[in-house]
Amino acid sequence: MQDALLALTRYWTERGCIVVQPYNTEVGAGTLNPATVLRVLGPEPWRVAYVEPSVRPDDARYGENPNRLQTHTQFQVILKPDPGDPQELYLGSLEALGIDVRAHDVRFVEDNWASPALGAWGLGWEVWLDGLEITQFTYFQQAGGMSLDPVSVEITYGIERIMMALQGVDHFKDIAYAPGISYGEAFGQAEYEMSRYYLDDADVEANKRLFEEYAGEARRMLDERLPVPAHNLVLKCSHTFNVLDARGAISTTERARAFARMRGLAREVAALWAARREELGHPLGIVPPLAPAVAGSSAVAGSSAGFEAGAGSKAGTGSEAGDEAAAPATLLFEIGTEELPPAEVTRTVEAVRTAVTEKLAGTRLEHGAVEAYGTPRRIVVLVADVAPREPDAEKTMRGPRVSAAFDASGEPTKAAAGFARGQGVDVSELGRVVENGVEHVAVVKTVVGGGAVEVLGPLLASVVAELRAEKNMRWNDPKLSFTRPIRWLLALLGTVPVPVAVSSLAAGTTTRVHRTAESPTVPVSKSDGYPEFLAAHGIVLSADVRRSEIVAGADRLVAGVGVVDFDGVLDEVTNLVERPTPILGAFDAKYLDLPPQILTTVMRKHQRYLPVRDADGALLPHFVAVANGDVDVDVVRAGNEAVLRARYEDAAFFWRADLRTPLADMKAGLEKLTFADKLGSMADRARRIASLAQRLAAEVGGQDPTLERAGELAKFDLGSQMVVELSSLAGVMAREYAVRAGETPEVAQALYEMELPRSAGDALPASKAGALLSLADRFDLLAGLFGIGANPTGSSDPFGLRRAALGAVSVLRAFPELREITLSRALALAAEGVAGGGVGGGGVSGEGVSAVEVSAAALETAREFAVRRYEQQLLDAGHDHRFVQAVLPLADAPASADQALAELTELVGSDGFAELVAALQRVRRIVPATVEAGYDVSVLVEPAELALHKAVSEVPAGVTGVAAFVAGVGGLSGAVNTFFDDVLVMADDPAVKAARLGLLATIRDLAAPVLDWEALGTALS
Amino acid sequence: MQDALLALTRYWTERGCIVVQPYNTEVGAGTLNPATVLRVLGPEPWRVAYVEPSVRPDDARYGENPNRLQTHTQFQVILKPDPGDPQELYLGSLEALGIDVRAHDVRFVEDNWASPALGAWGLGWEVWLDGLEITQFTYFQQAGGMSLDPVSVEITYGIERIMMALQGVDHFKDIAYAPGISYGEAFGQAEYEMSRYYLDDADVEANKRLFEEYAGEARRMLDERLPVPAHNLVLKCSHTFNVLDARGAISTTERARAFARMRGLAREVAALWAARREELGHPLGIVPPLAPAVAGSSAVAGSSAGFEAGAGSKAGTGSEAGDEAAAPATLLFEIGTEELPPAEVTRTVEAVRTAVTEKLAGTRLEHGAVEAYGTPRRIVVLVADVAPREPDAEKTMRGPRVSAAFDASGEPTKAAAGFARGQGVDVSELGRVVENGVEHVAVVKTVVGGGAVEVLGPLLASVVAELRAEKNMRWNDPKLSFTRPIRWLLALLGTVPVPVAVSSLAAGTTTRVHRTAESPTVPVSKSDGYPEFLAAHGIVLSADVRRSEIVAGADRLVAGVGVVDFDGVLDEVTNLVERPTPILGAFDAKYLDLPPQILTTVMRKHQRYLPVRDADGALLPHFVAVANGDVDVDVVRAGNEAVLRARYEDAAFFWRADLRTPLADMKAGLEKLTFADKLGSMADRARRIASLAQRLAAEVGGQDPTLERAGELAKFDLGSQMVVELSSLAGVMAREYAVRAGETPEVAQALYEMELPRSAGDALPASKAGALLSLADRFDLLAGLFGIGANPTGSSDPFGLRRAALGAVSVLRAFPELREITLSRALALAAEGVAGGGVGGGGVSGEGVSAVEVSAAALETAREFAVRRYEQQLLDAGHDHRFVQAVLPLADAPASADQALAELTELVGSDGFAELVAALQRVRRIVPATVEAGYDVSVLVEPAELALHKAVSEVPAGVTGVAAFVAGVGGLSGAVNTFFDDVLVMADDPAVKAARLGLLATIRDLAAPVLDWEALGTALS
Repeated sequence: MQDALLALTRYWTERGCIVVQPYNTEVGAGTLNPATVLRVLGPEPWRVAYVEPSVRPDDARYGENPNRLQTHTQFQVILKPDPGDPQELYLGSLEALGIDVRAHDVRFVEDNWASPALGAWGLGWEVWLDGLEITQFTYFQQAGGMSLDPVSVEITYGIERIMMALQGVDHFKDIAYAPGISYGEAFGQAEYEMSRYYLDDADVEANKRLFEEYAGEARRMLDERLPVPAHNLVLKCSHTFNVLDARGAISTTERARAFARMRGLAREVAALWAARREELGHPLGIVPPLAPAVAGSSAVAGSSAGFEAGAGSKAGTGSEAGDEAAAPATLLFEIGTEELPPAEVTRTVEAVRTAVTEKLAGTRLEHGAVEAYGTPRRIVVLVADVAPREPDAEKTMRGPRVSAAFDASGEPTKAAAGFARGQGVDVSELGRVVENGVEHVAVVKTVVGGGAVEVLGPLLASVVAELRAEKNMRWNDPKLSFTRPIRWLLALLGTVPVPVAVSSLAAGTTTRVHRTAESPTVPVSKSDGYPEFLAAHGIVLSADVRRSEIVAGADRLVAGVGVVDFDGVLDEVTNLVERPTPILGAFDAKYLDLPPQILTTVMRKHQRYLPVRDADGALLPHFVAVANGDVDVDVVRAGNEAVLRARYEDAAFFWRADLRTPLADMKAGLEKLTFADKLGSMADRARRIASLAQRLAAEVGGQDPTLERAGELAKFDLGSQMVVELSSLAGVMAREYAVRAGETPEVAQALYEMELPRSAGDALPASKAGALLSLADRFDLLAGLFGIGANPTGSSDPFGLRRAALGAVSVLRAFPELREITLSRALALAAEGVAGGGVGGGGVSGEGVSAVEVSAAALETAREFAVRRYEQQLLDAGHDHRFVQAVLPLADAPASADQALAELTELVGSDGFAELVAALQRVRRIVPATVEAGYDVSVLVEPAELALHKAVSEVPAGVTGVAAFVAGVGGLSGAVNTFFDDVLVMADDPAVKAARLGLLATIRDLAAPVLDWEALGTALS
Repeated sequence: MQDALLALTRYWTERGCIVVQPYNTEVGAGTLNPATVLRVLGPEPWRVAYVEPSVRPDDARYGENPNRLQTHTQFQVILKPDPGDPQELYLGSLEALGIDVRAHDVRFVEDNWASPALGAWGLGWEVWLDGLEITQFTYFQQAGGMSLDPVSVEITYGIERIMMALQGVDHFKDIAYAPGISYGEAFGQAEYEMSRYYLDDADVEANKRLFEEYAGEARRMLDERLPVPAHNLVLKCSHTFNVLDARGAISTTERARAFARMRGLAREVAALWAARREELGHPLGIVPPLAPAVAGSSAVAGSSAGFEAGAGSKAGTGSEAGDEAAAPATLLFEIGTEELPPAEVTRTVEAVRTAVTEKLAGTRLEHGAVEAYGTPRRIVVLVADVAPREPDAEKTMRGPRVSAAFDASGEPTKAAAGFARGQGVDVSELGRVVENGVEHVAVVKTVVGGGAVEVLGPLLASVVAELRAEKNMRWNDPKLSFTRPIRWLLALLGTVPVPVAVSSLAAGTTTRVHRTAESPTVPVSKSDGYPEFLAAHGIVLSADVRRSEIVAGADRLVAGVGVVDFDGVLDEVTNLVERPTPILGAFDAKYLDLPPQILTTVMRKHQRYLPVRDADGALLPHFVAVANGDVDVDVVRAGNEAVLRARYEDAAFFWRADLRTPLADMKAGLEKLTFADKLGSMADRARRIASLAQRLAAEVGGQDPTLERAGELAKFDLGSQMVVELSSLAGVMAREYAVRAGETPEVAQALYEMELPRSAGDALPASKAGALLSLADRFDLLAGLFGIGANPTGSSDPFGLRRAALGAVSVLRAFPELREITLSRALALAAEGVAGGGVGGGGVSGEGVSAVEVSAAALETAREFAVRRYEQQLLDAGHDHRFVQAVLPLADAPASADQALAELTELVGSDGFAELVAALQRVRRIVPATVEAGYDVSVLVEPAELALHKAVSEVPAGVTGVAAFVAGVGGLSGAVNTFFDDVLVMADDPAVKAARLGLLATIRDLAAPVLDWEALGTALS
């Protein structure tokens, strides 16, 4: 291993990196070393390489977990500016480590990086070696809240992982660290003991005090304008925070506060560093931006690996210019990129196809079909039959009116002469044109059509310049912005190069094939047959073809073994490779004892493998991995199998440990998990949820032993090792462990459903017990956190309150039978729990901990917040926003509002409904809000008003449903209209006037609870 | 520079070292990394190499000092066990760095290492490259208070220094760190900012709290039996302490307490680590001890560079055994070592000469002169004319008495028969021998003399085994112990190898010459002419010859330039080289503006250079360095000149800065220097000293303007940069700066003398003002620190109270005119000052700070402590301990006691003195202590008692001097003797008895103040 570190050091120093030492205070990653996080700021160049033992207290496992260490070794490289070919440089470093990149499957898999605590983010990849993540590769976009210019490339190698793969060992302790000494021998004791400190023995109060001291000192150093010691102290803060976190001593609110504080300090450090460097006159100089490219020159500026057509190609362009007038030809335009995120491949193919089509429509160039294709590294447009030139066109230039162009004697006036001169014709050549009935003098000119090449150049340049993705980044180009760097352009019209220049890029006549090819850059002589040309170089341009190849290939591999389960990852895998090479791998059948959800989660989510099942759908101990291009299948299979084994071994380790642990013990572990400031531990929260679920049940008709038992166990799996590791399995593991511990299937299911929905669009609880627990969970969170003032803000929702509110609303909508549980009622009950009340014994042990009095205003804010989520759900579902507004008054019971909305939607087209709405509208408009319902019938005398009185009297009282109301109002709208036609409301007699207004107010109030008629009025007008 | 680090890493990994990373918390040295300080403990092998950025807040200089950094780079190597040839391995590493060790003067200069805070020490060297210290090379003997077995070799390279020398730059910032980037560009800003933090901006209270937190956590981790996190926390303590220290926030008492605490923790960490490793079964194995050597085999076990005579030589020994009987021959015995401390060379030559002479005397081997010689690397004994064999000898074996050997009939008894059988003779062969007048049977046997080689083998082995130095160490040998490792033995009698085996060493027939020689190991065929043989290999065996060569060579070099000043370092230099090569160097004459004491201190103490003076004794800008052996003189001269320039530049920097600073400003700086807990700042202490000096002056007759002014300035130079750097110049700089600031020469001198004596044997103040200040300084320290209970203990005297007490006593002894200043009086006055009293304005600003009430008991303890120091001085000076005891009652005024001792010594041989002592003795013995002086003369009637009464009456009252007393007592002793002869003291008449006893008690009390007659009595008996 030490030789590997030396080899990397040597490799990168030979490429101009300086070497610095690991930082001498604990850091969680090499990124935090000032050699990265400060040096990436500002305009100075910087190339550095160093080892960084990275301390992550949370990853402490006493040295028992084969893959997890409290201190692991990173090798960190920063290239500032982006040299233009950092991926190629990186691959070279793997070869320096002795990795045959031709035999292995080395892949750049989308992985973006953000550190809110550092105010930093970047886009890039995790690099996979046969499915094993060995490196993080990031284009740094922002640090300390500052946008970076120039952009830095950060390459972070995970050394232990690379070593385990290279040495073929299963446990980090078995890595040969140096001749005759293993990693475990060298560092095993420290790993164990530091784990003990971080997980068990660090004093919480002492570390909290340390945090305060560091933060205070950092603050003072900022005030002294000393960014270096300030940064040092922020790092100490950060490590101390991590220690507290590993000890389980950080509540959600404390976490948010600590992060905000560290982020604030880090931003100030960054700003101060940048300012100080400027004051020092940028001692290392300033990176000059890349020069703009010249169209027709294909030099890819800044690339140290680029293979350039250069002047030769340019000369060719010139010599072939004579071909321009030839027959229609195919346009080939390729935008060469670094590995695009799979979703962006599809999206960009569409975007480019559309852009080219639309832009061509803006020219007079005739052309055939526009086709677009994409792989992770290229977007290709092929336009058939592009005419060599635009046809010429005529253009009429309008001059002065004839009446003004000629004087009385018919001689051209000065105006006419001036116009003719301006158009470069003789006055005698002026024609006439009639426009809007007025005759003008005019000149008709011929506009000569452009040559295709001249027209296409700027057109294609603008396509590139306008490319945008969901998340965009910058690289070494001074102007472009896209999801990943664009590294080359290829543009040919038939055999003629199209001169495209955009920012620092100029199109050439070469493309890049697999980086591991003997010649990674190859010349392209013509546009026709380009897909086949690429296929000959091992690249499948069409995603459809790649997908079919994967399906066919995978099916072939498992023939006789089982059936491939393509669910979920096929699209992604299709766009992760330029040529798919499906490989069948196996794992030890013993892992099939694990719940299938764990197995498939690991395969799909972590590894992008396709599971293999038997005819009954049961998992088989096989998987299909899809490698890129021509690899050594045995090597790649072995690598992927090892990765999966390690992951499953991890999971099995937790599984076994958890199965040995009684549920009560896991649940007891929640006492140690702080939930949030003033809101006690996670155990307190679980008790509140159980109690609240019972009270909600009481609202809708009584108890249920399933609910009671599930409440007792609520959240117990948060104390399981599996969920501590894989938090997305919360609920899933509860069900698994509950069943195995002998709980009833109903209880197990309720525990699972309690966690639903985990995200928008996720499944909802199916059982009533599950629904009640889910609601209790969410309302407790909302009441508690709004209660302590931890409201979400526009950009920040650290406690997931949006998700909680959405979940609660969704459950209520899915369970109309729980309609009695309104938002107000549920929140009020939850607030009682938070204040220390609630039924059952739960409150007892929580006493003194959770005693937050939630104000009425806070509860109303929480309710409003939930209503807004409901409104957003309806709008997202495509409902007319006016209908949505109309039912919102009912949203305290979302199921009721849903029903009203449904009925309303139904009624809108029906007879008489519009009239009813209009009638009610008339009523509402004429009655001042101050007038109360009720009237003296005796003063009513006019037939129309008596008829209206009768109609009102017949409306059934207390109707709430829209449909019921509409059905119930009968002839009301007719009566209203007649009333308004025949009767003057504002009678001179005050008593009559009062009775008429009172009658109308009665109608208003009858209708009011049903809908927001006002909002609806606009919808139907 | 980064290439150098890589080259070292590569070199040492190729020699089996594992590489670890720098420690991820701040450490002051690579030693503190657990890879050293923990791994050297216990029996496991360990070889490691690593870079360690070493943080020393105290060395922070804002990046302005060319040679001083708050973070410098160490490269650290640990070889455990000692491989037997670590020096050779080290020299190889210098070559790997591109240093031509043949051209340069590479030297191993005694430098022992101890870290009380770590409970660690070792012996070794600093390695000089042309006078520049580039490496610390230590055989670790103890760590964490535990003796190390096996011993580890620690090699610590100072990388910045090596780089500056190799690159020939004058400032660390100019080091080329990596291609195109300088050290200053890479690290300059951090150097400046961290200096700001450490020197100016770190919050003292916050860091004190941090210290407590870390110490508390360390304590807890020890209780949890987790040495690794405990060590980590101790390191954080240590760094925090260093920060506080650099901020000037640590008082002497705080320092002592903090050190004691850290030392205690470090010891526990070490013990716990060792215990844990044992519990873990010593995962890295156990180092086997070297096997004992076999006499006659010259294999040097464990040496990887050794050049061995081996079996061939052994065979030779056998074949030449026949020569044993030849003529007398010269014995050559060489003990080959690594570089001995210069003083040990001389001492060991003598010790070996004596041991060989005495041991030969214990044999019957005839021999000629025994000569011994030594160089840093060898001790050689040559014994002329050693006889080939011991002569045979006769030995008489005594049997039973004749009376028991023969029965009445003259027949041999069983006893005789048994004796004869035991001696292997027939009864008839028994002879007779008379012993103590009794006749015994006996047998006379011939003892055959041993061959010289057989006799010498064990003899020489015992010489080696019994070698001891002042400080001894262990290395890879399982049994030997000496000041530095013994690496080879050479023993020849004429041409015959002498088989010597001691522990793992066996003598051979080779020696080692300069390590840079083409063959560093050469065979030696005969003992005759060995000095000449070595001379031919460039080694001057005799120290006398080396000394003459240095003198002659240096004189030759400076001929026409000046005169070499050989004072002080000639003996040391003589024993620092095996062949002296004097080299004349120069420095810029501008440095001659500095006080000569600075220049010579640097030359002699730091560099072991010989200063060059002109005919008047003024320094010239030259020096003579003495290199070892055959070097490239120009290279070595340039190197030494650069070192001296750097040191002088440093000094000049401080000198200039100080000269720009008014004395008052320097003095003001003392306010910020905490002195000791409760005793205020150094400024408070200076004020107390000034005030106390005035009060002491008042005791002996009045004020003096010099004393007053010097008091105002007292200690001001502690605020100068020069003294902060070179604390040994305190006082010296005060004088220099005071003169230049226009103070009178007397004031300047008094300020200088105030600091005297700085150590035992140092000069004492010459002026009264100087003496008073010196006394005030020391009594203030004693009263203050005894006052706060910081008494020294047997092993620990962190405040230098012993030195202070010795100094005060020495000054009082040198100034008999200050006799009125007794220890009691001075301490009492000092205590008043400490309590906030004292005359003059000094007390005002000190109010509230120094308000320690010193108890009478504490003052008496302090006085006793000083008296004990005085007693020790007298005993060390060789005075009879009984005389010393006799005058101790006078020691409160040491000058009086001195006088008494002198008089006593004079009187001892004089007439009548012994009688007087005896008489007083008789008096003292008969009078019970309870009897008081005084008597009723009227009851005395006997002539003898009346005569005695008369004699007593004539003794002059109030005499204190011994001589005066003796002169005054006249016939007292005669009268006493007659009294005892003639009179019965215990008369029957109680009144008579009382009067007689009262008379004797009066004599007793007259004599008592003069001496302790009891103690003296024994001396003369």
